[in-house]
Amino acid sequence: MNLSDFLLKIQPLDTTTIPDTQAKLDNLTKPRGSLGRLEELALHVATITGSYNPPMDSRRVFVMAGDSGVVAQGVSAYPQEVTPQMVYNFLGGGAGINALSKVSGFDITIVDVGIATDIETEHPGFVNKKVGYGTKDFSQGAAMSREDAEKSIVAGIEAVLEQHAKTPLHLTATGDMGIGNTTPSSAIIAAVTGARIADVTGYGTGLDEQGLERKIEIIQGALELHAPAPTDPLGILSSVGSFEIGGIAGVVLASAYLHIPVIVDGFISQAGALIASLLNPYARDYIIPSHQSVEKGSRVVWGHLGLRPYLSLDLRLGEGTGAVLMGPMIDAAMSMLNNMASFAEAGVSGKNDDS
Amino acid sequence: MNLSDFLLKIQPLDTTTIPDTQAKLDNLTKPRGSLGRLEELALHVATITGSYNPPMDSRRVFVMAGDSGVVAQGVSAYPQEVTPQMVYNFLGGGAGINALSKVSGFDITIVDVGIATDIETEHPGFVNKKVGYGTKDFSQGAAMSREDAEKSIVAGIEAVLEQHAKTPLHLTATGDMGIGNTTPSSAIIAAVTGARIADVTGYGTGLDEQGLERKIEIIQGALELHAPAPTDPLGILSSVGSFEIGGIAGVVLASAYLHIPVIVDGFISQAGALIASLLNPYARDYIIPSHQSVEKGSRVVWGHLGLRPYLSLDLRLGEGTGAVLMGPMIDAAMSMLNNMASFAEAGVSGKNDDS
Repeated sequence: MNLSDFLLKIQPLDTTTIPDTQAKLDNLTKPRGSLGRLEELALHVATITGSYNPPMDSRRVFVMAGDSGVVAQGVSAYPQEVTPQMVYNFLGGGAGINALSKVSGFDITIVDVGIATDIETEHPGFVNKKVGYGTKDFSQGAAMSREDAEKSIVAGIEAVLEQHAKTPLHLTATGDMGIGNTTPSSAIIAAVTGARIADVTGYGTGLDEQGLERKIEIIQGALELHAPAPTDPLGILSSVGSFEIGGIAGVVLASAYLHIPVIVDGFISQAGALIASLLNPYARDYIIPSHQSVEKGSRVVWGHLGLRPYLSLDLRLGEGTGAVLMGPMIDAAMSMLNNMASFAEAGVSGKNDDS
Repeated sequence: MNLSDFLLKIQPLDTTTIPDTQAKLDNLTKPRGSLGRLEELALHVATITGSYNPPMDSRRVFVMAGDSGVVAQGVSAYPQEVTPQMVYNFLGGGAGINALSKVSGFDITIVDVGIATDIETEHPGFVNKKVGYGTKDFSQGAAMSREDAEKSIVAGIEAVLEQHAKTPLHLTATGDMGIGNTTPSSAIIAAVTGARIADVTGYGTGLDEQGLERKIEIIQGALELHAPAPTDPLGILSSVGSFEIGGIAGVVLASAYLHIPVIVDGFISQAGALIASLLNPYARDYIIPSHQSVEKGSRVVWGHLGLRPYLSLDLRLGEGTGAVLMGPMIDAAMSMLNNMASFAEAGVSGKNDDS
């Protein structure tokens, strides 16, 4: 697949249906706007799908997994072997994303975009799209070649398109697994948004203060070394990114192409969403923002994208856990839009000054 | 039923299981605390029910309905006839609470605690516990007698206990319907918390600036007229309250008595929760706080109760809509606690410094 050609196929959001959907919302038996952000969510999903009542049964979270060479610099509290261990845990059904997907109706696809070891499994929920055995240590040189950056994005696009060809998707969500991947995420976010590195770099899975200082220094040094242009997504991804973040960008782009709402998880997924939005700004409009992560910088990315997350539950696990929690919120929003009576239908009086 | 006797039967939360539940949470395959407030929610539900994996199928929202005499002062944007119209809409399945309960697994009971007209229905989801045909205009005199205040609370207690006797309840939620009832709510909240009236009085379903000023003046005048003691819940409820708010207090108290988690909705329900907590401070510990309402003062009540709401979705509808949205969050939290593997079970390595 040629990425440039694919990007040209993503269409702008068709906003012509918005006035009709808004009128429908305003006629339901509730004070106008009183269901707040649920109304915003219903309007968004209806606009993306072009339907008041789109099917929402086939929902799938794509957990993009990869390893980061920069862990050699001691930027993570966990050893790299945890990446494949957690992938086996996903496949065995014992991780957070499994527990939360189970109750929110999501199927799970785990995509190996660049884990440092091979995953031995015949599990139908596993897809091998390995671009390499982990990225290189970006404090020393580029994390990956520009060609591999493109390949990692295509891996995410293909994972979605191939699944969609098997069973049409109605709703997608992004997730990640990769020890050390808050470090490339912070680097990408600083490079794209221009934010101070210290303002977008946090404790990850559990660094101490000294570890955080070191992490900031590593990112600072890498951005000075590579100096990627803020408008060059492939330059940023190849110099300081990681394979799974490229894959997440691909999931966002493929969903936008298919006019499927794509729920973007927290910090690492947000870095992928930034890359996707730089590759094609239309992609942003297909994103359902999920939650404000504990990880410093989550707020910065949502603000940069002009998106307001729906949840703020002090999450910092990743895997797509915050994204799948939005499934029931979407169900509630669409049930409101479709199952509530209008004032006329229910014989309910309007406001005193509306008569 | 004698209210004083009932209040003595509510037991303090049994906190002895907390260390075991916390240890179980900490051994699941995720960085400690990384599922943030979902972990807090799971711990709370497990503590209230005394079980890691309590049944959660039988969940019911009790929508307490009543009318407020103070609407004669023009404190609401909607006419009083909307209260019974909306009750018929609930029974017909067309309201916001119906649409949201449908996707979050809640059954609905509508309780007439004091609607100004009779509701003609044989619907099994309707319970008649009418204390009176609306309260009196509390800008002129007491909203109700002290005896009726007690009756309204007992109405809520009985609604829950009678339902529980028919089909044991696992989870309850509070809701309200009553045109004008943000006015008694603000008055109760100001009386209990000592907050400035202007800080806990908002636009309700859609007042303009002039209407808001008038509403504040009415509440100010009523609190000066009645001067209820901040420690006298029956005095506050009878002087400036409403029947359905008493009923909500009863739902909270009955749930606490039964060791059932009770999800408290937004502004009006919060006023009921304040009354319940004054009647028996143990009741507070059985409350699952749902959402921060748009209505000014919601934040004040949660702070006064020492509870932090999980959601903030700009809701201001009432009916229990924000409460039932917590159903899927509880499902997610309990699925995490019960369906995730431990580090040992999954063969996943711990933190570098844990070895």
